[in-house]
Amino acid sequence: MSRELFVITYGALVAQLCKDYEKDEDVNKYLDRMGYDIGIRLVEDFLARSAVRKCRSYSETVDVIAQVAFKMYLGVTPSVSCSNTTENEFFLILDKNPLVDFVEELPAGRCSLCYCNLLCGVIRGALEMVHLAAEVTFVQDRLKGDDVTEIGIIFSKKVEDKKHKRKK
Amino acid sequence: MSRELFVITYGALVAQLCKDYEKDEDVNKYLDRMGYDIGIRLVEDFLARSAVRKCRSYSETVDVIAQVAFKMYLGVTPSVSCSNTTENEFFLILDKNPLVDFVEELPAGRCSLCYCNLLCGVIRGALEMVHLAAEVTFVQDRLKGDDVTEIGIIFSKKVEDKKHKRKK
Repeated sequence: MSRELFVITYGALVAQLCKDYEKDEDVNKYLDRMGYDIGIRLVEDFLARSAVRKCRSYSETVDVIAQVAFKMYLGVTPSVSCSNTTENEFFLILDKNPLVDFVEELPAGRCSLCYCNLLCGVIRGALEMVHLAAEVTFVQDRLKGDDVTEIGIIFSKKVEDKKHKRKK
Repeated sequence: MSRELFVITYGALVAQLCKDYEKDEDVNKYLDRMGYDIGIRLVEDFLARSAVRKCRSYSETVDVIAQVAFKMYLGVTPSVSCSNTTENEFFLILDKNPLVDFVEELPAGRCSLCYCNLLCGVIRGALEMVHLAAEVTFVQDRLKGDDVTEIGIIFSKKVEDKKHKRKK
């Protein structure tokens, strides 16, 4: 299947959501939620096709996302960096973002739009399916004038995990 | 880019629209409209990459859609048939529909949903950009229990074309 069809379809989805929702925040949420639904389904396909083994650390997990998953599904390999201050925070740095191939800039008046927020949802959903809770957000975005596009992944600390489970 | 990502993303889009809109008809319209927006953009990419020449008949046009466009974007080649009664009506018959790869059946209570209606919109939009007005709809759908999936294309008759132009 063609890359162009996917990229243009994604663009049409974002454009349509911008018509449907006035607030950028609502479009971002919608994309994240849709991405989450994709992630929880895609992870099966990923585990079946990639045959990766269980990761032993957050750092290994992020490497698999960047080097195997991004490569497999989007044809690019982001570079990975980690936070200097906390051991559970990582960054995927995309020099090239295939989802914005035909996009020059954000739509007019949509300066808070996270155009590719679907990706954050996909990562969040897929991680959840392997029992890793994480916050995933864009921390930099070329479409917003930043030098690179960067996705931040903050894994929930174990203590928080336990609290979360207890609540359920 | 991976086929699975596209197919699962499309599925998530349809699922989300089913949550957003109660009536199947409204989901169908939304998909068709989104498809139209995709078609009017995709046609540029298609003309640039396929280097097809101007078609001289409806029949030739439909052959190009089936053999070049479907092949290029979806990796399948539908067979083409034409109506016995009118010269402006054609059918694309899909033995295999890649968009429903992971779909067993229509969602519960959604028996009028045209799951792949995006495709109709894409064809309609692309045709309009090469100055061909057409109605494009699903006439059969395996997801609805039919033996094949079949898309009908009815080109507007020339008299109607002229009327349409005059209105503008």
